[in-house]
Amino acid sequence: MAYNKDNDLKNLIKLFAKLPSLGPRSARRIVLHLLDNRQTVMLPLIKGMQNIIEKINHCQSCGNWDVGKICEICLDPKRDNKIICVVETVADLWAIEKGEVFTGKYHVLGGTLSAIDGKGPEDLNIDKLLSRIKDNQVQELILATNSTIEGQTTAYYLVEVLKDLNLKISKLASGIPVGSELDYLDEGTLGIAFKLRNNF
Amino acid sequence: MAYNKDNDLKNLIKLFAKLPSLGPRSARRIVLHLLDNRQTVMLPLIKGMQNIIEKINHCQSCGNWDVGKICEICLDPKRDNKIICVVETVADLWAIEKGEVFTGKYHVLGGTLSAIDGKGPEDLNIDKLLSRIKDNQVQELILATNSTIEGQTTAYYLVEVLKDLNLKISKLASGIPVGSELDYLDEGTLGIAFKLRNNF
Repeated sequence: MAYNKDNDLKNLIKLFAKLPSLGPRSARRIVLHLLDNRQTVMLPLIKGMQNIIEKINHCQSCGNWDVGKICEICLDPKRDNKIICVVETVADLWAIEKGEVFTGKYHVLGGTLSAIDGKGPEDLNIDKLLSRIKDNQVQELILATNSTIEGQTTAYYLVEVLKDLNLKISKLASGIPVGSELDYLDEGTLGIAFKLRNNF
Repeated sequence: MAYNKDNDLKNLIKLFAKLPSLGPRSARRIVLHLLDNRQTVMLPLIKGMQNIIEKINHCQSCGNWDVGKICEICLDPKRDNKIICVVETVADLWAIEKGEVFTGKYHVLGGTLSAIDGKGPEDLNIDKLLSRIKDNQVQELILATNSTIEGQTTAYYLVEVLKDLNLKISKLASGIPVGSELDYLDEGTLGIAFKLRNNF
């Protein structure tokens, strides 16, 4: 391949380079790795994607990705369906699942309210959340939106919408991340950590 | 998806996580990005890989990857076939091509001599190099093996094998940091290394 000429190989590198956390150099390395390992890596990757491209959909209950209409988490009888953790995206859901710190159900909003992006309440998966709360007699809601302006605005909006329901609503604690050094933290985090300090 | 349970989605993330420069976290981000953009990103990626998986082979002349039996560089009449740049891998060839510092032909060895990995001269694409030198009356050889012990050992071995042929043999010189690999270098450094190449 003449590197600077367009062809199938170059196009594939370009496609990989556009994926999150990849650039032209890592994309080239990946494509070379795929070419060197066509049967053991490239073919399984193609099959793996073909396998899910038609099958996977958003869970009709919580918005997670899964192969069924209802996701494994929503179907799991061992998980407490009286407590729902509200997250912005499926990525956030997976991050919490990986931490193994929560045994209730989830609800994926599909983003945040954002004036800049023109996203209002009707663009978020809120109606479904309300019906889930009523249908399952949910007792507690944990608002785990990101600690950004948009995430916090969305959390306050939800508190407002849900205030008349008989619900315990909490949000994830703000403060200093475990294992971090004070010197590397931003003033906002330090400020909140001082404000919300706990007695021994 | 229950994150810790095996299923098609988890398997796909695992496949991505094994690719060079990716790990579990970036693989999860990529798979979520693919799910969110199935028609615009995932499908083209599948098609792009299917497109080349059967077609691409090593160029029978130089060892580069291409769709034809002979690669575009070897076929290019504008490139000087009296001068051959010998590289370890196709990645190195692409790195040099990207730098646009060389207008001759290439020869890909397919690795280096390595006592540890049990790789001897018969495992490298050397016979083909000898026949190319004779058939095309090559006048100059640039040994662009990596600046590692194996790369330099391989270069010295080639000098020994080729010393009786009437050939100017040079190697990439100053500008290449010891212990680093071509694919990681910037174009400026590669350019200087080509310009100041030294005779053996």
